Amino acid sequence: MTDVNPVLDRADANLDASLTRLFDLIRIKSISTDPAYKAECRKAAEWLVGELSAIGFTASVRDTPGHPMVVAHHAGASADAPHVLFYGHYDVQPVDPIELWESDPFEPSLKDEEGRKVITGRGTSDDKGQLLTFVEACRAYKDVHGALPCRVTILFEGEEESGSPSLKPFLEANAEELKADYALVCDTGMWDRETPAISASLRGLVGEEVVVLAAKRDLHSGMYGGVAANPIRILANILAGVHDETGRVTLPGFYDGVAETPDDVKATWQKLAGNDTDFLGDVGLSLPSGERGRSILELIWARPTAEFNGITGGYTGEGFKTVIAAKASAKVSFRLVGQQDPEAIREAFRAYVRSKIPADCSVEFHPHGGSPAIHLPYDSAVLAKAKTALSKEWPKPAVIIGMGGSIPIVGDFQTMLGMDSLLVGFAQNDDRIHSPNEKYDLTSYHKGIRSWVRILDGLK
Amino acid sequence: MTDVNPVLDRADANLDASLTRLFDLIRIKSISTDPAYKAECRKAAEWLVGELSAIGFTASVRDTPGHPMVVAHHAGASADAPHVLFYGHYDVQPVDPIELWESDPFEPSLKDEEGRKVITGRGTSDDKGQLLTFVEACRAYKDVHGALPCRVTILFEGEEESGSPSLKPFLEANAEELKADYALVCDTGMWDRETPAISASLRGLVGEEVVVLAAKRDLHSGMYGGVAANPIRILANILAGVHDETGRVTLPGFYDGVAETPDDVKATWQKLAGNDTDFLGDVGLSLPSGERGRSILELIWARPTAEFNGITGGYTGEGFKTVIAAKASAKVSFRLVGQQDPEAIREAFRAYVRSKIPADCSVEFHPHGGSPAIHLPYDSAVLAKAKTALSKEWPKPAVIIGMGGSIPIVGDFQTMLGMDSLLVGFAQNDDRIHSPNEKYDLTSYHKGIRSWVRILDGLK
Repeated sequence: MTDVNPVLDRADANLDASLTRLFDLIRIKSISTDPAYKAECRKAAEWLVGELSAIGFTASVRDTPGHPMVVAHHAGASADAPHVLFYGHYDVQPVDPIELWESDPFEPSLKDEEGRKVITGRGTSDDKGQLLTFVEACRAYKDVHGALPCRVTILFEGEEESGSPSLKPFLEANAEELKADYALVCDTGMWDRETPAISASLRGLVGEEVVVLAAKRDLHSGMYGGVAANPIRILANILAGVHDETGRVTLPGFYDGVAETPDDVKATWQKLAGNDTDFLGDVGLSLPSGERGRSILELIWARPTAEFNGITGGYTGEGFKTVIAAKASAKVSFRLVGQQDPEAIREAFRAYVRSKIPADCSVEFHPHGGSPAIHLPYDSAVLAKAKTALSKEWPKPAVIIGMGGSIPIVGDFQTMLGMDSLLVGFAQNDDRIHSPNEKYDLTSYHKGIRSWVRILDGLK
Repeated sequence: MTDVNPVLDRADANLDASLTRLFDLIRIKSISTDPAYKAECRKAAEWLVGELSAIGFTASVRDTPGHPMVVAHHAGASADAPHVLFYGHYDVQPVDPIELWESDPFEPSLKDEEGRKVITGRGTSDDKGQLLTFVEACRAYKDVHGALPCRVTILFEGEEESGSPSLKPFLEANAEELKADYALVCDTGMWDRETPAISASLRGLVGEEVVVLAAKRDLHSGMYGGVAANPIRILANILAGVHDETGRVTLPGFYDGVAETPDDVKATWQKLAGNDTDFLGDVGLSLPSGERGRSILELIWARPTAEFNGITGGYTGEGFKTVIAAKASAKVSFRLVGQQDPEAIREAFRAYVRSKIPADCSVEFHPHGGSPAIHLPYDSAVLAKAKTALSKEWPKPAVIIGMGGSIPIVGDFQTMLGMDSLLVGFAQNDDRIHSPNEKYDLTSYHKGIRSWVRILDGLK
């Protein structure tokens, strides 16, 4: 193991110059969704290629039908060093409403905010500041040792904020070049200001729209009420049967492939749970609605759900119409964990729904999405190394968390390149990403750089 | 009892002249909802006053803030003759789409249709033809006997097709003048072409809009799914619990005041039930959805129901949004029979709903309507007399039926004037009321007149 301290010292010494570089990148107005900024997007890609080349990467701007990718390669210190793919994105969100910004979104500055130094500007947190933490960590390493402890491939995308239309084709066309032992993704946040977090799992998703069809036209409830099938009643019965009274999903086989979270992980989450009340309190609620006997964090990060995202049927305008609708529909989604099979769950749901449809009615299904959960095994060596490295840097030990939603790139890396992802980032909950006055804490930037130094050192 | 046969003979002899009078009334374009026809409405009222005066009624046009009423009085043959109030309406629906009419809606004619003579034109069936059956019956009586067997008050309204805004104030202001032993309402139909019908009951109605409120804003189901209360799930559970598995409504006390239909009435309905399959088949259904073990006719005419008329919540547009809605709402209505108390049922429903709302959610209710059921006792003497009279006139005996919906005037007569209504009419299911090419069977008109002769004779 090389001594990491000189590299950390160098990162500290480089900080002012690192900030100057970040400010340069922030000034480039790389708004990917607005065609007016097409040249700015390319400029950001070229700027990154310049910086990466300067520290010894073989870097190039790679054209796509949309904004270009940046791909860069650097050998590791030894032939058996692990190979990592670092992913980030250089494009940013639009800045509207511009009048709510306290300073120019593309003229970054260092300000005091509640006693902390923050870097202001569009993209400081999402994702320019975050991706540069990794680049600056590489720079410090090269400055001190003339080499990197791991073989590193870098992929910077320029369309993340506009749906990543070029990403899959690019991954497919360049799979051999991009495939590494695992990916490092820096687009997430800390648990709190003192506690770094590694997101080890993302829930999968299955969506189904269900349309229950009864009479061939809307009926008058005076004439037909009590006799004609009411599709709203049928649908309500279907939805009401999806959960049992303990909050568990009733579909046969639904929990196949759902493993219990290890006790030590649960214990860590339990310790974090001081924030549970705030979590629901922030949206005006107080009682967890999911499976009984599990903490809020476990429910969101490690348990599958069935949710009803929309429902409509009959008369929904002002006042009242005594109508029996011809049809009613609902949008239902399942968040998946572990090894749950999206298509098996879709079929189990459809079979259940069909079993509840009276013989003189019918049902239509419209599928939406179907992606499995993504997860690093809790006992993965990479996870352990990253956790140790982060815990050395920050006041509190790193926590392994889950994410209730999904990040498409992580699924793409897994399905297209057969590669797990380690999700580490230093954003804070109050960074106002996608909103006016986006900022990135100077501490996030500085200790973020130091964190990557430690992680690269730990992974080798 | 006077001999009714000479009166029937006179009605037959009068038929051509009766038709001429109906044609005259049809030609008056009394479309109440269109201000352009205000003068035509008054003209229709004046025409009726003229006809009623000609046969000895004390008749007058009575102004209202809208179109005028016609009120007419005629003494009975003896001081102890029963006093009946006959109700009809002289206004008609608009004629759009005019291009679908095969002949001028206001130029009536006698046509052959499937081997039967029919009178064509707007208002032939609803309600000018029907109300004249009664007037022409009175004329025949007067022609033969110089007197009427019952004391008769007539009320013709000119706003029935536009919501009857003036009716309640008029009833209230003229209660003493209009109150009779019971009302005769001629705005309903036959069971089939050979079977006359008396509608002895109308279901009442209670409506409630229920709004379930959960989080203070819409939530992302990735971040909150499995933890935050989902108002669609809560609402589905509420609705699913309103009926048990046999189709009965579960609300405590819901069936208080619901009497079983007498066996002889049920037996009659059972005989009519040959049309049950058609009834549901016409709208693409086949299985009665209500309480098990009861016929379709009993379910519609004599059993209370809970129906869900509309539901909405979350994302209902094209595609999918993985949102957990802040609220969801449903419009729920109850059709009432017998002595069910609308307000007691509203409160039972609200109490049930509140019991299903989690402590961190809330519910709002918006009431809509609340009217009790209306019914003539099955053993009422008036009903028996009308049944006997009608059964003498038509090929098949009259049947006592119910109506699943409501006719507001009948409720007003009961609540404001304390008066039961006998609902008898001669319309056919294929009369196309409110639609292009409205018609009234010549047989309905002719035998309708004869039917009222027999009923008036029977009631005295």
